[in-house]
Amino acid sequence: MIGFEYHNPTQVIFGKGTVPQIGPAARAYGKKALFVYGRRAIKETGLYNRVMDSLRKADMVVVEHPGVKANPVLSHARAGVKLAKREKVDVIVAVGGGSVIDEAKAIAAGAVTEADIWEFFEFHTEIEDALPIVTLLTICGSGSEMNSGMVLTNEEKLAKFGLRAPPLFPKISILDPTVTFTVPPDQTAYGAVDAFSHVFEAYMAREDLDTPIQEGIMETLMKTVIARAPQAIEHPRDYNARADLMWVSSLALCGITFSGAGPLSLPCHMIEHALSAIHDMAHGEGLAIIMPGWMRYMASKKEEAMKKLAQGVFGVDTVREGIEALEKWLSSINCPVRLSQVGIGASEIPKLAQNAYALAQVWELSDSYTPEVIEEIFRLCI
Amino acid sequence: MIGFEYHNPTQVIFGKGTVPQIGPAARAYGKKALFVYGRRAIKETGLYNRVMDSLRKADMVVVEHPGVKANPVLSHARAGVKLAKREKVDVIVAVGGGSVIDEAKAIAAGAVTEADIWEFFEFHTEIEDALPIVTLLTICGSGSEMNSGMVLTNEEKLAKFGLRAPPLFPKISILDPTVTFTVPPDQTAYGAVDAFSHVFEAYMAREDLDTPIQEGIMETLMKTVIARAPQAIEHPRDYNARADLMWVSSLALCGITFSGAGPLSLPCHMIEHALSAIHDMAHGEGLAIIMPGWMRYMASKKEEAMKKLAQGVFGVDTVREGIEALEKWLSSINCPVRLSQVGIGASEIPKLAQNAYALAQVWELSDSYTPEVIEEIFRLCI
Repeated sequence: MIGFEYHNPTQVIFGKGTVPQIGPAARAYGKKALFVYGRRAIKETGLYNRVMDSLRKADMVVVEHPGVKANPVLSHARAGVKLAKREKVDVIVAVGGGSVIDEAKAIAAGAVTEADIWEFFEFHTEIEDALPIVTLLTICGSGSEMNSGMVLTNEEKLAKFGLRAPPLFPKISILDPTVTFTVPPDQTAYGAVDAFSHVFEAYMAREDLDTPIQEGIMETLMKTVIARAPQAIEHPRDYNARADLMWVSSLALCGITFSGAGPLSLPCHMIEHALSAIHDMAHGEGLAIIMPGWMRYMASKKEEAMKKLAQGVFGVDTVREGIEALEKWLSSINCPVRLSQVGIGASEIPKLAQNAYALAQVWELSDSYTPEVIEEIFRLCI
Repeated sequence: MIGFEYHNPTQVIFGKGTVPQIGPAARAYGKKALFVYGRRAIKETGLYNRVMDSLRKADMVVVEHPGVKANPVLSHARAGVKLAKREKVDVIVAVGGGSVIDEAKAIAAGAVTEADIWEFFEFHTEIEDALPIVTLLTICGSGSEMNSGMVLTNEEKLAKFGLRAPPLFPKISILDPTVTFTVPPDQTAYGAVDAFSHVFEAYMAREDLDTPIQEGIMETLMKTVIARAPQAIEHPRDYNARADLMWVSSLALCGITFSGAGPLSLPCHMIEHALSAIHDMAHGEGLAIIMPGWMRYMASKKEEAMKKLAQGVFGVDTVREGIEALEKWLSSINCPVRLSQVGIGASEIPKLAQNAYALAQVWELSDSYTPEVIEEIFRLCI
């Protein structure tokens, strides 16, 4: 086992009917909340009213910051910081998926400093403090509700950066699987693929393969996603399927999966970021294309880990069969597994590779992921 | 999945060579430490000196409270409270196994209140605060280094009570597997059985068996103990075996195993406490006898869970084969699996059952565990 530090102070409140706990949870951290949410969904489903009721019953003063986009952008987060400062809020309440929670984290950190928040991302200015964050999760996948990470896009610089900092752990995250009953099939699938990919990348990144605890936990999480995603897509109100997808998503990046097996590295995410930066597609959709291609490239280089995946997760013998099984599962939940399925041809590869290589330098993966390697991986995704 | 709350704020620092981090870890919580430890082991192995060096280098003032017994007793904990108050220590540093850490928790809670610590146990006086606790684990099994529980024996009343309270989570726990290289074979085995039993009881207590995440995690932990315990006993300096036993022990009761599968219930522990209260034996030794007997009693009542254990953990088909496989593993690490092996005959059963039933009433298990049921279980342990 590799040495590690594990620390995850987020309190999780999980289960049917936990939505009304958002008010008391926020009230534990102050009287005035900045309520951060997205664009339409929570108003359409009635969740907005349930959250407002709970906050008001808990005697909270609520300042609203709606309109967070998928792939949250710097300008909108900056507006949130300004509002949080002007209104002197005590706590940030984030109701949404990973994008909403990530932007809420950026606002929480920005509200207690004079520095501009982009400095955290581009110049590694340390985040020493943040307002307390309370979340209510509506779309599973990113795991942001139970970790200290956030991703933000600087739309002027066309740069999408991520970071982790201990003050960004949500204090309390409320996970009510029934809230996800209304998530449509495609978003359910993309979220499932995102959660799967977080475990998959950690599984593949292991520096020590003699790590049965981590291996077993990760195989369990991957097998659960594989089984539950089709169920949730076919029966959107299947509680156990929704609950398992939700809890897997949170556990996948909470730190428990890879602690002891080596540091986490996310090359498929890196390559995917280039793809969805240039083409309008969901993160999970892009990952579904990149993972099998990356596996074909790595088949001989990470043969032992690949074989373990084939046998431990898909119940097949060889690396080739493992890749086929992954593609079969992804296809079964209507995800594309080739670039050609989303209309991207070989001619676009140099541009995609260039974008990904720029990220590789930021992510400190450029030693292994040269432009040539990335191009080759993209070619294996055609 | 069953609704749950999960919160575990303990920071774990795990790995080879982490002992010197004890000083800075304690220093983060103040200047003056109460150093709680046991009787001989840490002086014999030189660990005492390494800890003192680290504390002194971190500029700590150290007050010592040695002499914690296996199954820590109230009088000694009270003496620790008195010392902590008199010396106005800022932080408790516990270096030892579960007994040392449990007593350190009692002292930490007692040091910040006027109430006598036994009131927490017998009269459910709430623990609202405690001094910060930093631990360095030397014997695996109890899991106390990563949870909020403690067990203490009132030697006057012959009562052994346990409780959980959020302020008792250690702030930082240092887990260096090399520290356990010197743990002798019998204690290694008993610790492994204790860790196994924590998972086993949670696995069996499940109210919802359609919980693949929890099931897979628990099966992984049990299978890891089964594989690693014999290796650590045969090769005491096998790092990966020691590391896996250590991390399993911590994860086993950290909350992640049973969250979502129903509340934890520990009937085998309850029955074992009666056994080791009356007979001089290690907790893990007693558990090795009780678990198979309890399984024989429950075979038809919890058939589905038993079958899952047989198939998922031991790779055999039937409940009977599962029980045999458990006994075979326990025997292979030189644990007794029958009362007769430790010289206890049928004539002692009424007294043992009476003691266990008294515990059942305290543990709120007396509806299912009547004196007759407990006697029957003991008979199946003969």
